Amino acid sequence: MYRPEIKVLDCTIRDGGLMNNHQFSNDLVRKVYQAANEAGVDYIELGYKADESQFDRKEYGPMKFCTEKDIEPIVQGIEKRAKLSVMVDIGRVDPETIVPKGESYIDMMRVASYVKDIDKAIDMVNLLEDKGYETSINIMAVSHARERELDEALMQVEKESKTRVVYLVDSFGALYSEQIAYLAKKYKGLMPSKEIGIHAHNNQQLAFANTIEAIINNVNYLDGTIYGIGRAAGNCPLELLLGFLKNPKFDLRPILNVIGSDFIKISQEIEWGYYIPYMITGVLDLHPRFAMALLNSDKRDDFLQFYEKLINESNV
Amino acid sequence: MYRPEIKVLDCTIRDGGLMNNHQFSNDLVRKVYQAANEAGVDYIELGYKADESQFDRKEYGPMKFCTEKDIEPIVQGIEKRAKLSVMVDIGRVDPETIVPKGESYIDMMRVASYVKDIDKAIDMVNLLEDKGYETSINIMAVSHARERELDEALMQVEKESKTRVVYLVDSFGALYSEQIAYLAKKYKGLMPSKEIGIHAHNNQQLAFANTIEAIINNVNYLDGTIYGIGRAAGNCPLELLLGFLKNPKFDLRPILNVIGSDFIKISQEIEWGYYIPYMITGVLDLHPRFAMALLNSDKRDDFLQFYEKLINESNV
Repeated sequence: MYRPEIKVLDCTIRDGGLMNNHQFSNDLVRKVYQAANEAGVDYIELGYKADESQFDRKEYGPMKFCTEKDIEPIVQGIEKRAKLSVMVDIGRVDPETIVPKGESYIDMMRVASYVKDIDKAIDMVNLLEDKGYETSINIMAVSHARERELDEALMQVEKESKTRVVYLVDSFGALYSEQIAYLAKKYKGLMPSKEIGIHAHNNQQLAFANTIEAIINNVNYLDGTIYGIGRAAGNCPLELLLGFLKNPKFDLRPILNVIGSDFIKISQEIEWGYYIPYMITGVLDLHPRFAMALLNSDKRDDFLQFYEKLINESNV
Repeated sequence: MYRPEIKVLDCTIRDGGLMNNHQFSNDLVRKVYQAANEAGVDYIELGYKADESQFDRKEYGPMKFCTEKDIEPIVQGIEKRAKLSVMVDIGRVDPETIVPKGESYIDMMRVASYVKDIDKAIDMVNLLEDKGYETSINIMAVSHARERELDEALMQVEKESKTRVVYLVDSFGALYSEQIAYLAKKYKGLMPSKEIGIHAHNNQQLAFANTIEAIINNVNYLDGTIYGIGRAAGNCPLELLLGFLKNPKFDLRPILNVIGSDFIKISQEIEWGYYIPYMITGVLDLHPRFAMALLNSDKRDDFLQFYEKLINESNV
């Protein structure tokens, strides 16, 4: 028996775009949009709402900006079943440029925030809710948060924000299932009026397992990406998630199809997934940028030296 | 705080050998043997005890047979800290050829058996125990076992066998953590005098997570392989397991080192790991041979057709 409250959010294009400055062709973005719609996911996240005065269109593809004009050629002519989502980074978007929901293709805006920026995140979601959007607050890098500060932030979100969804984000792929269960219970306990979401990273091959653990602990918003594409080790593979969920509205087949037609090839061009340097930063609960730097160097297989260097630095 | 009863068994060479007819060079096998010894694992499994009248040495490497003469060049000159294990398949070994423990390099023999062959497995482990070996019974394909027959087999093993260890084996990588927990409790409940082991396959990226779930449910014998090498989707990656376990006797570094020096290259020659056809057989709880056949065909990326074919066949 399935839980009808469960919502699946596909963030293939948004999180995958972190690996190539969002330089996917519109053709590929349309294929993903179509496949995810047909697969029955609830939300499709295409990219970021980034400020054009801060980021250059010569460097970044259209899904970095997600203006209405950028989105139109993606969604045109494809039957829309899922809601459309974009991500908003605190400080990287000009709220003045955001049109009211009635004038937008976008249904949901997810605000990414560290614990320390929670006041700004609350202001932002309240502004976006007033413009008519669904919102979420995605609290990043929770494995690095001090517990008392996290607790205070969660209580403040419960009290002051109009958002309905708060995400638990394991940015470094460092958390084990028991820690996910502990945090999910904490989030729900301190924010009884909110839905909880999970966004897991796959450094230790735990993104799917931790998503299941979150489901068991009453988390209802689940992020996945096709073939697990995403920054560094990537995310919870959508195909595994849909294979697990029992709601008959989900259909695995369009996702299998687009993996075969496009993502096998993309995985040969963009490096995400289970690479030992990402595994090492996951085990050590560190940002993957250290691993990304190693993989771009001529010492990319010198795992032992990399591990010892990180251990020594964190012991200082 | 760690659990001192936990034993780690590295079966890199044994399970990896299923992908290349055990044609690893002695040099590579020695490197793995040395690294696993230095990493502090408790058992190292090198291969099978196969009957030379059934299997041809022209087709299979020495670790298919694991005679004393085969093992000698592997272990010579390397400090032995771990015990040495081999696997015995029911019907594929002549018990007469097995020398007493006092004349052997081998410490442990693991007997692989389906539920239906449990009488033979009990006879075999009792014979091996009488020869002085440690043993285990590894009950394969438990996801396909009828529950009443499994229960009877476990009760019979408890009562009639001299083995001290019984393994829960998720041969098809089909089980989710709740099912692992359920089975681990069943095994321990019906066999209170035995230690329980776990051997997980990684079709759904759950081998490591399911091994953790087994640990939580009092399973103490844990199989892993370097970089997850093994048949089809492979096994629980030893480096993840050692990164998780808290016992200070374990050292991740020799394993990271041998991955960088050898296993990255081997992974380009032998196909194991997260391939969509293996994911599909895992989701459908089917033997990976269907997926292996697809991957050796010219339709290897036609995942949708493969999935629909398997679904249709299992609906007949």
